[in-house]
Amino acid sequence: MRLHVPTPLRWSDLDAYGHVNNARMLSLLEEARIQAFWVSTDTSEHAVGASTAVIDATPGASTITLIARQEVEYLAPIPYQRQPLDIELWIGYMGGASLDVCYEVYSPVGVEPRALYTRAVTTIVLADTATERPRRIDERERAAWEPYLGESLTFRRR
Amino acid sequence: MRLHVPTPLRWSDLDAYGHVNNARMLSLLEEARIQAFWVSTDTSEHAVGASTAVIDATPGASTITLIARQEVEYLAPIPYQRQPLDIELWIGYMGGASLDVCYEVYSPVGVEPRALYTRAVTTIVLADTATERPRRIDERERAAWEPYLGESLTFRRR
Amino acid sequence: MRLHVPTPLRWSDLDAYGHVNNARMLSLLEEARIQAFWVSTDTSEHAVGASTAVIDATPGASTITLIARQEVEYLAPIPYQRQPLDIELWIGYMGGASLDVCYEVYSPVGVEPRALYTRAVTTIVLADTATERPRRIDERERAAWEPYLGESLTFRRR
Amino acid sequence: MRLHVPTPLRWSDLDAYGHVNNARMLSLLEEARIQAFWVSTDTSEHAVGASTAVIDATPGASTITLIARQEVEYLAPIPYQRQPLDIELWIGYMGGASLDVCYEVYSPVGVEPRALYTRAVTTIVLADTATERPRRIDERERAAWEPYLGESLTFRRR
Repeated sequence: MRLHVPTPLRWSDLDAYGHVNNARMLSLLEEARIQAFWVSTDTSEHAVGASTAVIDATPGASTITLIARQEVEYLAPIPYQRQPLDIELWIGYMGGASLDVCYEVYSPVGVEPRALYTRAVTTIVLADTATERPRRIDERERAAWEPYLGESLTFRRR
Repeated sequence: MRLHVPTPLRWSDLDAYGHVNNARMLSLLEEARIQAFWVSTDTSEHAVGASTAVIDATPGASTITLIARQEVEYLAPIPYQRQPLDIELWIGYMGGASLDVCYEVYSPVGVEPRALYTRAVTTIVLADTATERPRRIDERERAAWEPYLGESLTFRRR
Repeated sequence: MRLHVPTPLRWSDLDAYGHVNNARMLSLLEEARIQAFWVSTDTSEHAVGASTAVIDATPGASTITLIARQEVEYLAPIPYQRQPLDIELWIGYMGGASLDVCYEVYSPVGVEPRALYTRAVTTIVLADTATERPRRIDERERAAWEPYLGESLTFRRR
Repeated sequence: MRLHVPTPLRWSDLDAYGHVNNARMLSLLEEARIQAFWVSTDTSEHAVGASTAVIDATPGASTITLIARQEVEYLAPIPYQRQPLDIELWIGYMGGASLDVCYEVYSPVGVEPRALYTRAVTTIVLADTATERPRRIDERERAAWEPYLGESLTFRRR
């Protein structure tokens, strides 16, 4: 099962070439990942994937998420557009203390033909805030994420 | 009359102090301004202020908007939150080729008590893309913006 | 007396108009200010203004610096260039717990004719890290900064 | 042969965890790559690798560089530090229209023990500005880059 996270662009995501900058794309993936996996700290419940949102990384929380690895394939330049990008997100691998988040970044819902802009995988390690050392994914997290386990991305260029 | 532009934060807007960074605030104001004043290039009409959206600054358009001046008062630190900030936006002055956009940045709609985080004014100059020289605000633009003319901000610290 | 802080641009400071973005300019001013006023935490002493560098804002330090206000005048668009911008920096006002840092941002040293791109003032409040409440500028800080006190900027547009 | 590109951090590269943000790292790699490969447009010649600097990507130039792929391994969190990071840079592969730039990001020169923070590879495609279609690497470029050809990175996690 995949989550769909609507992710708005900003005009400032463009670089001097007039496309979304390649580094900024990682901030968009970061934001989609946070929407999907982090506990909402607002009073209103607004998480994209309510059941997936089990990481509490608010200030003072006991877990931080470290990025160990990222792989990104840029398939087409992305222009500024008002409708949010449609980022599909799933888990390609779940280990003892780490997981691979997979993404496919598509044009906004309703735009025809649908364009696949970017494909990416991020390896996240859950770590203890105080020691910054990895800690095991617990049973509650594992149960919340299991439905979103799927085949990992196969990159075209490697 | 004021426009209300819902403006989403990103986690990456925070700096090492854990608050929205002061420079990043100007990107949020920029985005609210674009939502309010720029012609939507999407097929779906999604402009916040449909009647105000008369600047076409898409690539190849004949107008660019230059920033001549900004004044910003930071009243309270802004934490990361999922609900979009509520940015109120109006025009404090309209001259021959320039206008002053005024902003008050509030906590998300529904959060009680409502917090006023930031107040700001941006002086924008409309310019010709080719020459980068100021060009006059035309009648259509003037008519679209007139309803949003109001008293300019008075800053507390000066 | 003014400090001269060489401040390198990055290509990613440009926006889709091909100039340094107006919001990004505040990050450049921030960096110049940190170079001038913060204690270097490197083993090698590298502070621009060795005597001015009295704020210790490293993680765990007792002081944070809050930005209360910024005023910026953009006089000319800034292209990407390899040589660092030449940012002149002085103190326009020193109060009980706050100070006004003034900046003039010039073209790189050696470029002729010298161009003045931007003028700005930032009001900084020193605050206690734990409480985030203002704390008085102490005698050591006051003595370090006094030589850099000068007339504040007068803005052209107001 | 490897190029060494000193690459300064900014305080604003830190995120709320107090380390250089993972997305921002790609902007640092971008800047190192530009210093190494782009023609300097300043009057003063300041290119890191004078002989390697053969891409003219200034506004109006006939070539743009598209990013097709990035792979990044984050080995250790990077704190704010004044001395520039020491980025080693070489070419892991040169094809007809594309090349793989390899990076190892180290602690500033002189810091002991030397820390390896990040390893990365970027696949760049040279394209025609007007059409945005790939164009062949020409003889002059190939000759300039050949001395920097080396073995590509082998990533630890894959």
